[in-house]
Amino acid sequence: MKSTNKRAVVLLSGGMDSTTCLAIATSEGYDCYSMAFDYGQRHAIELEKAGLQARAFGVRRHMVIGVELSKIGGSALTTEIAVPKEPPAGDIPVTYVPARNTVFLSLGLAWAETLGARDIFIGANQVDYSGYPDCRDEFISAYQRMANLATRMGMRGESISIRTPLLNLDKAAIIRRGLELGVNYINTHTCYDPTPGGLACGLCPSCRLRLAGFAAAGCKDPVAYA
Amino acid sequence: MKSTNKRAVVLLSGGMDSTTCLAIATSEGYDCYSMAFDYGQRHAIELEKAGLQARAFGVRRHMVIGVELSKIGGSALTTEIAVPKEPPAGDIPVTYVPARNTVFLSLGLAWAETLGARDIFIGANQVDYSGYPDCRDEFISAYQRMANLATRMGMRGESISIRTPLLNLDKAAIIRRGLELGVNYINTHTCYDPTPGGLACGLCPSCRLRLAGFAAAGCKDPVAYA
Repeated sequence: MKSTNKRAVVLLSGGMDSTTCLAIATSEGYDCYSMAFDYGQRHAIELEKAGLQARAFGVRRHMVIGVELSKIGGSALTTEIAVPKEPPAGDIPVTYVPARNTVFLSLGLAWAETLGARDIFIGANQVDYSGYPDCRDEFISAYQRMANLATRMGMRGESISIRTPLLNLDKAAIIRRGLELGVNYINTHTCYDPTPGGLACGLCPSCRLRLAGFAAAGCKDPVAYA
Repeated sequence: MKSTNKRAVVLLSGGMDSTTCLAIATSEGYDCYSMAFDYGQRHAIELEKAGLQARAFGVRRHMVIGVELSKIGGSALTTEIAVPKEPPAGDIPVTYVPARNTVFLSLGLAWAETLGARDIFIGANQVDYSGYPDCRDEFISAYQRMANLATRMGMRGESISIRTPLLNLDKAAIIRRGLELGVNYINTHTCYDPTPGGLACGLCPSCRLRLAGFAAAGCKDPVAYA
């Protein structure tokens, strides 16, 4: 049942999780406003995929926001630090980008307030990325509480929700849900360290999680690997 | 007494409040890392003043981060909405930039985590700007709580503080404190709607608060007005 005038901001990186998250928001009847970030990531090819998915799901508007996180550094994804080719072991991996979800949610919050959207969707997942502090339930709850104090909407009692439909799903469950909702995963990008031509490496932690997810879901990953 | 190895990130717009905040952080013995934001503001001249103040107070590093808030809009400061020339009356003024302090603190948080800095200074003030939701004590407390859940530092028990030394001071008290600490207010910019040559208008709400503050402090504002 399609409701009307229900706006949501959806953070859309062009990866599997955020695309599935967009599919879920769309299926719930939201008018979706998708937002991608050009932050100096070495895998900027994901922005092309975000644009394709925004079109595929008929969002009201897709916005790419520039934010110079690469100046701040501190991560293998935005600097010359090498992306590891082994599965992560203990502690927080070098691919963690300091405060990235906090920054992205904050830009999503700014747009939500401008649009009068009360829901912000983010494809955070604490099952397969448990090393990242900003993918945990307790972070999301604290963020939502802060967001309601930060904004005019919150002051007026129009409460804002940070929606995380993937938070407790594993990769296989995410893929199955996405396929049910018509996601074409060939137009998603996951690899942290693609070839200059944009092919996924198949070896970085992010590729490994993706491939294991497709295997567990019992289907073949449609993207090409180097 | 100058302590060592105590790093702080200081959000520095080049206005009176953030400059005074930098003077206070410096006086407390912090090694300061100042951060300014190029967000499409119509008063981008403030970035020049931020650079001058960073040099004047000998910060370790001054960083200007680009973030495209003007694409999001929703404010007289980043769009063609006119800046009012009367004192604000009731409600939240059109000069409010949606979620601006949330976005700026989040970028400051990213840098703090990269530097291992546990203090982030912001010149927020709830006395003379009470119309902005993101200048209130309860917002700052909620932000700090979220920040400690968002980061590797927080997970490791190295708690992060959002420092707001100006929160409960009025403009006159801010100016007096800054003068004691050697702030040269000629190199600060406050006006929301300067002339093309960079002169303050003297009429916008921000100029009015500044001028009233200097009058109450019993001294003359050194900047030139149009």
